Amino acid sequence: MHDPGALTREQLGFVGGRLDRVDHIRTRPDLAAQTFALPETRIVALDGLDPVTADGHLVMEAAAPGARAEDHVLLGLDDLQRPIFARLAERVEGGFFPTERSRAIATELPAHEIALYGTARSLVHWHARHRFCSVCGSPTQAEKAGWSRRCDACSSEHFPRVDPVAIMLAEHDGRVLLGRQHRWPERFYSALAGFIEPGETIEEAVAREIKEEAGVTVHSVRYVMSQPWPFPSSLMVACIGVAGDDALTLDETEIEHAFWCDADGVRAALANEPGAPFIAPPPMAVARHLLKHWLDGQLVPPGPSA
Amino acid sequence: MHDPGALTREQLGFVGGRLDRVDHIRTRPDLAAQTFALPETRIVALDGLDPVTADGHLVMEAAAPGARAEDHVLLGLDDLQRPIFARLAERVEGGFFPTERSRAIATELPAHEIALYGTARSLVHWHARHRFCSVCGSPTQAEKAGWSRRCDACSSEHFPRVDPVAIMLAEHDGRVLLGRQHRWPERFYSALAGFIEPGETIEEAVAREIKEEAGVTVHSVRYVMSQPWPFPSSLMVACIGVAGDDALTLDETEIEHAFWCDADGVRAALANEPGAPFIAPPPMAVARHLLKHWLDGQLVPPGPSA
Repeated sequence: MHDPGALTREQLGFVGGRLDRVDHIRTRPDLAAQTFALPETRIVALDGLDPVTADGHLVMEAAAPGARAEDHVLLGLDDLQRPIFARLAERVEGGFFPTERSRAIATELPAHEIALYGTARSLVHWHARHRFCSVCGSPTQAEKAGWSRRCDACSSEHFPRVDPVAIMLAEHDGRVLLGRQHRWPERFYSALAGFIEPGETIEEAVAREIKEEAGVTVHSVRYVMSQPWPFPSSLMVACIGVAGDDALTLDETEIEHAFWCDADGVRAALANEPGAPFIAPPPMAVARHLLKHWLDGQLVPPGPSA
Repeated sequence: MHDPGALTREQLGFVGGRLDRVDHIRTRPDLAAQTFALPETRIVALDGLDPVTADGHLVMEAAAPGARAEDHVLLGLDDLQRPIFARLAERVEGGFFPTERSRAIATELPAHEIALYGTARSLVHWHARHRFCSVCGSPTQAEKAGWSRRCDACSSEHFPRVDPVAIMLAEHDGRVLLGRQHRWPERFYSALAGFIEPGETIEEAVAREIKEEAGVTVHSVRYVMSQPWPFPSSLMVACIGVAGDDALTLDETEIEHAFWCDADGVRAALANEPGAPFIAPPPMAVARHLLKHWLDGQLVPPGPSA
């Protein structure tokens, strides 16, 4: 099961899940209960919402005696055809940002186990925060092997959230726009980002966010890649847009500082060079891969430029 | 304000909104209240969740005497700098599928007004179904000019949902995979689709859905376009993937029938030819534009093929 290739430091986080999500079992309570009762069934160990690891793997446990299928979510079948569940929690604390432990797995675990942890984390968080019906206020019950919650009082059905987020670079004349939030570590810069809202395409959200945060108008937005980000349940949608000019008007409540960085600066930051103009996001984050993607598309030779 | 170009029958629905969403006003209750009180403020008329139109435009009304800002959501400023709000409803019926009225605006309204209606509809639906806190069951109050709801009992903040949906064509040897659901009108076929789940990239969701619904394995998934779909608040993410072979194993609970259609068949369906092998989705739907995009990429000459 060990996958040394996935342990490189440059692995994008939470991508590359290998579970078979077995939709046909989720929708059959009898099958879900039988699956939970199998001797090979495993439960992903979690410490609150944090991962629990040993010897370079997530810890997986047999179901406790007396454990009930309905207190668990069926994540899927692994490569060995073992059913993998996560245990639901009555409450969780926070969960909106990565912790030290959840960051550390980037270099400890194979990619597909990081993805499995992310899926478990998002679902456990969602259940703990949806124990009541948002329509009528009555208690809800997990259903469909943990892939929905139903309200017996008003019959509403609620499904796990996935919140799409646009994360993007504006590019202008061989440079890209980087910004930093007030609470970030010194010299850390990244791509701008924001939640996609009702009534927007991905491309419209990209243009709105860059305009709101930096006062820059972009066109020709192109999709680059996506990533699930389980803090608590975002879908990062990474894009690049072309800016008409480079004048900045920052929203200073959101952005402490922003600047246009050329390819040499991006290259230096991705290489962690001491003289780099900024500290780049870690490999776990899609922003780093978006910067790499942009850099790969530049044909600027290394060295001083005009 | 009339935009005749947007009235073509081939306009993708709910795309092309022009409102300035004025995030800096939403976060300031004083500014939001002042904005609501302006004489030029307009409220989008809705009949339940259905649109109300006259003379080829959405009906916009002045605020009723005594109307309160906190019972409305600020959609943004229009091209004339008029603040546009929608009135929140205590309850809505259904809203999960398009109605006759909401389909009809495709040929009645300029694109940006269809987008405005879609945004209003998603937000009114979300508020009506989130009057209680999913964390603790207590009543919630609208905040941030209608862009969040807060629970006074447990201090949780809740944000409007946007549910990303993968909608996709598998392609194999010059043909694309089309399917139909049991409840659809006779001969109507479209792209397969399904909600993106926690822990998946867009591309992983595309591959999982095609595998689940049709038994087809795809690789090399490419993003094509996106669309907000306000029934009630989806973000359609349209993609094409390459199938390794063309054997089908249908999930018959989801899919009544599926088949591989060549470029001639897609061309005939998009042209509404009587002999076409299927009836294509309407212009309002992204599936039609995905089919067009695929067809534009084919170099198959018209006429009989092997």
